[in-house]
Amino acid sequence: MTLDLSETSHRRFNPLTGEWVLISPHRMKRPWQGKRESTPATGLPAHDPDCYLCAGNLRANGAKNPDYRHTFVFDNDFAALSADAPGERVEDGLIRAEGESGVCRVLCFSPRHDLTLAMMEISDIERVVDAWVEETINLGGRPDIGAVQIFENRGEIMGCSNPHPHGQIWATKNLPNEMEKETHRQAQYLLDHGRPLLLDYLAQELRLGERIVSENAHFVTLAPFWAIWPFETMILPRRRIGGFDEFSPEEKTALAAALSDLTRRYDRLFDVSFPYSMGFHQKPTDGAVHAEWQMHAHFYPPLLRSATVKKFMVGFEMLGSPQRDLTPEQAAARLREV
Amino acid sequence: MTLDLSETSHRRFNPLTGEWVLISPHRMKRPWQGKRESTPATGLPAHDPDCYLCAGNLRANGAKNPDYRHTFVFDNDFAALSADAPGERVEDGLIRAEGESGVCRVLCFSPRHDLTLAMMEISDIERVVDAWVEETINLGGRPDIGAVQIFENRGEIMGCSNPHPHGQIWATKNLPNEMEKETHRQAQYLLDHGRPLLLDYLAQELRLGERIVSENAHFVTLAPFWAIWPFETMILPRRRIGGFDEFSPEEKTALAAALSDLTRRYDRLFDVSFPYSMGFHQKPTDGAVHAEWQMHAHFYPPLLRSATVKKFMVGFEMLGSPQRDLTPEQAAARLREV
Ligand SMILES: O=P(O)(O)O[C@H]1O[C@H](CO)[C@@H](O)[C@H](O)[C@H]1O
Ligand SMILES: O=P(O)(O)O[C@H]1O[C@H](CO)[C@@H](O)[C@H](O)[C@H]1O
Repeated sequence: MTLDLSETSHRRFNPLTGEWVLISPHRMKRPWQGKRESTPATGLPAHDPDCYLCAGNLRANGAKNPDYRHTFVFDNDFAALSADAPGERVEDGLIRAEGESGVCRVLCFSPRHDLTLAMMEISDIERVVDAWVEETINLGGRPDIGAVQIFENRGEIMGCSNPHPHGQIWATKNLPNEMEKETHRQAQYLLDHGRPLLLDYLAQELRLGERIVSENAHFVTLAPFWAIWPFETMILPRRRIGGFDEFSPEEKTALAAALSDLTRRYDRLFDVSFPYSMGFHQKPTDGAVHAEWQMHAHFYPPLLRSATVKKFMVGFEMLGSPQRDLTPEQAAARLREV
Repeated sequence: MTLDLSETSHRRFNPLTGEWVLISPHRMKRPWQGKRESTPATGLPAHDPDCYLCAGNLRANGAKNPDYRHTFVFDNDFAALSADAPGERVEDGLIRAEGESGVCRVLCFSPRHDLTLAMMEISDIERVVDAWVEETINLGGRPDIGAVQIFENRGEIMGCSNPHPHGQIWATKNLPNEMEKETHRQAQYLLDHGRPLLLDYLAQELRLGERIVSENAHFVTLAPFWAIWPFETMILPRRRIGGFDEFSPEEKTALAAALSDLTRRYDRLFDVSFPYSMGFHQKPTDGAVHAEWQMHAHFYPPLLRSATVKKFMVGFEMLGSPQRDLTPEQAAARLREV
């Protein structure tokens, strides 16, 4: 008997984290009698007087938003990180903690309350990319910041409490877990092979073709071989780029185009404004060169079968390993076709 | 300025996995305008003619359930693992996979459709513990099984598609990610200190007291110092027990009592049938002794503020590190008091 990756249960290795995912392709046949999600509200106003992100409105801390025309960035009024947390350590047997300082920023993508990345013009998404570049340079340049994590939670189902198009930036002193793993694994690969891991991986995927979703002159979107979420994707640059501070003007436009393309594909998949968490991993801002680092975007969308049935990452996933039904090859084919 | 773990943002180290959690105690003040969950249905019948887990009913594969009186175990009709998956490897550059064989079992806790662990008699929960012992011995004894993962997804919000009280057992050839991490870290600790990690940790927590939820003669329930979920807990045995195959009769009764106590506390917390994923980590069944291994239960409940507001593990959590607001000390105090 030979291993057929589209039919038999198997596990795949994620070289960026060193972890495995369990794949059960035959399991898509299982009927679903469980929870159904509600679909997002449509017909939102272009400006909502009660929205604390809309231009000219008041925020929780009493500040008034400017009359912004493109993007608008400010410090989160309920930040998870305090800039002045002392770095001190607590260590007593198996109890180990340390102060974690940092900055939490909110970035409004547009003054329009009713848009999403999928509905915005590429030239307007470019302004968002500009803001990511600027925040990376400003925050990353601080001596007390070691990592700049840019992300967006899109949709109520992803814990987003306001439909106004916005993302966040959490900048921390220490490397978060996922950044730690990816830094370690990329550094080891560069040492062993003399080339960045994700450039080699991209070359291999371009040769194979079956997991590619779309491409432009500077970026490629694909479903990684080791994807966890049903329609998980990555956006990878074609040349080595460590972080947003290294972008050329053409690359900014190309990333905006790639984001537009992918979010539109997602929306067409189940004919719904597609929920996800997405974010960029980029080189640590600790002052070192990080030749091993290749910046990239991860998109983690929760939906599995339809606009109302999501994948639950629960029991076995929490206690054992992530598990998926649909294969990444099937997901890529569907995203290519829509 | 000194680090106050109940006030300032900090991170805590999980010695079982080697990963960190970000804690933002001040953030509980944040108002919640996002998604609210529906609460579980009440007033279920004791027997539901449409339930495929109730006694005497038909299952998806056409089999008829026996007229069981206590527990009932069978092979999952939509198993994520196939027993006959070939072990073969695929390795080509950064693409790496291998067949993963195993067994998925379903365990009905009671013929009563309308009960939960919190509502069952301790003597009936003991029958569930008996079944876990038996499954561990039977599955773990097979040469093709290296790990026996017992778990329960409780509540619609945790992807449970049938309210009939039941859990699952997924037995795999390879160690799942979390088991791999815990095995490695416990083995290293035993090597370094000559004592099992979780026995040392329990002794330390019993001395400190502030994270203990409840205790009986053989088990202690506590909110671990490094907990991720708002009301996450662990149940730890007082003596060294590697797995379910090592339980004494008194320990079975005591574990049933600890499970009853904890699930009742959870239900009282927000006055709702409390959702969670829970499961047991126990020593690998690869034939080795595993003197480092201390079996334990993890409870991962999603609720944060009330019966309808959960914690979303999304953007920063998926791309960076898990983040929590409420401290484990506050959670333990609330669970102690209810
Ligand atoms: O097997 P069930 O209960 O139908 O499915 C549930 O538990 C499984 C194991 O944690 C998960 O993989 C599924 O996403 C979840 O819906
Ligand atoms: O900051 P927000 O959007 O209110 O909150 C959301 O994103 C955060 C960062 O991923 C999470 O910690 C929260 O659980 C989620 O609800």
